[in-house]
Amino acid sequence: MRWQGLVAALMLAACASAEAPHPVADAPVRSLGEILEQSPAADWRNVDQNNLIYMQLPAGRVIIELAADYTPLHTANIQALARAHYWDGAAIVRSQENYVVQWGRDEADPRPMGEGQATLAPEFDRPRAGVNITRLVDPDTYAREVGFAHGFPVASNGRETWMTHCPGMVGAGRGDTADSGSGAELYVVIGHAPRHLDRNIATIGRVLQGMELLSVMPRGTGPLGFYETPEERTTIASVRLGSELPASERVNFEALRTDSATFRDVIESRRFRRESWFLDPVGHVNVCNVQLPVRVR
Amino acid sequence: MRWQGLVAALMLAACASAEAPHPVADAPVRSLGEILEQSPAADWRNVDQNNLIYMQLPAGRVIIELAADYTPLHTANIQALARAHYWDGAAIVRSQENYVVQWGRDEADPRPMGEGQATLAPEFDRPRAGVNITRLVDPDTYAREVGFAHGFPVASNGRETWMTHCPGMVGAGRGDTADSGSGAELYVVIGHAPRHLDRNIATIGRVLQGMELLSVMPRGTGPLGFYETPEERTTIASVRLGSELPASERVNFEALRTDSATFRDVIESRRFRRESWFLDPVGHVNVCNVQLPVRVR
Repeated sequence: MRWQGLVAALMLAACASAEAPHPVADAPVRSLGEILEQSPAADWRNVDQNNLIYMQLPAGRVIIELAADYTPLHTANIQALARAHYWDGAAIVRSQENYVVQWGRDEADPRPMGEGQATLAPEFDRPRAGVNITRLVDPDTYAREVGFAHGFPVASNGRETWMTHCPGMVGAGRGDTADSGSGAELYVVIGHAPRHLDRNIATIGRVLQGMELLSVMPRGTGPLGFYETPEERTTIASVRLGSELPASERVNFEALRTDSATFRDVIESRRFRRESWFLDPVGHVNVCNVQLPVRVR
Repeated sequence: MRWQGLVAALMLAACASAEAPHPVADAPVRSLGEILEQSPAADWRNVDQNNLIYMQLPAGRVIIELAADYTPLHTANIQALARAHYWDGAAIVRSQENYVVQWGRDEADPRPMGEGQATLAPEFDRPRAGVNITRLVDPDTYAREVGFAHGFPVASNGRETWMTHCPGMVGAGRGDTADSGSGAELYVVIGHAPRHLDRNIATIGRVLQGMELLSVMPRGTGPLGFYETPEERTTIASVRLGSELPASERVNFEALRTDSATFRDVIESRRFRRESWFLDPVGHVNVCNVQLPVRVR
């Protein structure tokens, strides 16, 4: 059987176009796979189990890395809520097409928050000073500067920096006031980046494993994609911190450092598409179109 | 019950921020709903049933508008294939996370193409001259100029113009050569816009109804999201042209003209977010973050 079409689009063969409309970078041509295979061990970091939350759904497990550097208050609160087993029996309550999937507890079924707090000071951005951003050179619609820092996609206006709402990024729902969120209600971006949410709400991390379990949740038919009946919801069996799990239940991730030479090569391999399928090598890449490589030790 | 968080994000209340970091346009504040309600009838067009294909899936119907102006050869070929009932018994064969869902016929189960052709000249772009593009003023990562024309999101380098790979856009799969596609194998974008496909492949239309049926297809576990067994596929009962359906089975869409004053107001309402939930009114919008309003007559 032959399924043509986009099959070849992600193949990693090397090919330079003779009539490229953009200048092709004068670098050795390596596929993405080769770049990662040839990377030095020092370009990878062990992901801290204390910054991982494991969410157990009926269909499998979702694992999220918390952004301790960008949103320390939310990270600490989510860690406290996980330690209190706050989300055990919570549910996926919303699935909105090309936007977000959201989960939390029903008010009618509360649970003690342990050392967690119900509201937090906003962490919509942080000072730019002292943050090492691996910058993209292509223009961005929403921000003066975009790139990657501490393992996450970020943007900056030169004074503040914030994480961008790319697919797989997780945010903390809030009400109308800036300090009304806490991380108790979380959402994940499943569609084209809703970058208008940047700086309006705190993004707190990203999904490292299990996105395919969240993104296919049947869309809710209520306003904003909320489910209209409790029966439509998916129950969350448990949410645990990696550091509280037995070693046998942990996944030991290594994430490519976003300030490494290898990651800069990854970015270039996404900007200039040298695979034979590409007739136009492109020469640009959006901050939400660069994959952030993760592997299991 | 109270689900806070992003609930308010799409509410259409009017509110201007007193400390807006961007200049707020000096226009009367109307919600998106008000803009559409107050629009003159002449700002809407009847979508031609001859440019609509209705794809029947077990869970419901997907309706796609063909881009007759940008890709006339593919439009004519897809119309011919639909008239030949080419896709009856075809299947969804691929679902790749944050990328595309794809369908076509299994080679082992061929069907006559009628007046359709197996390959077509490429239609990856068309001349810019003579195309009226409603432009966006914000920068774009991939193209010098972006906006909307003939009801579709488009980009241009000043000389050529092409449709952009936003979510919901449908493209014609091809092999390694430019003329190897035909529209017999189609894909729909389900994730963050893979704009690196722009000008590398022909986008041929967009989904007007039923995206929520395609985007939740279980992700395939084979390479590139292909299903590994026939059992995982979803069978397509039929694909028909609207003009060949009995009137009782048609949906009579009106689409907001993308060259209308109403649509320019829609764009501004997406650039400057005046809903009370937004603490930062944003002041920018990406070509893939502007909804293209459609209503049923």
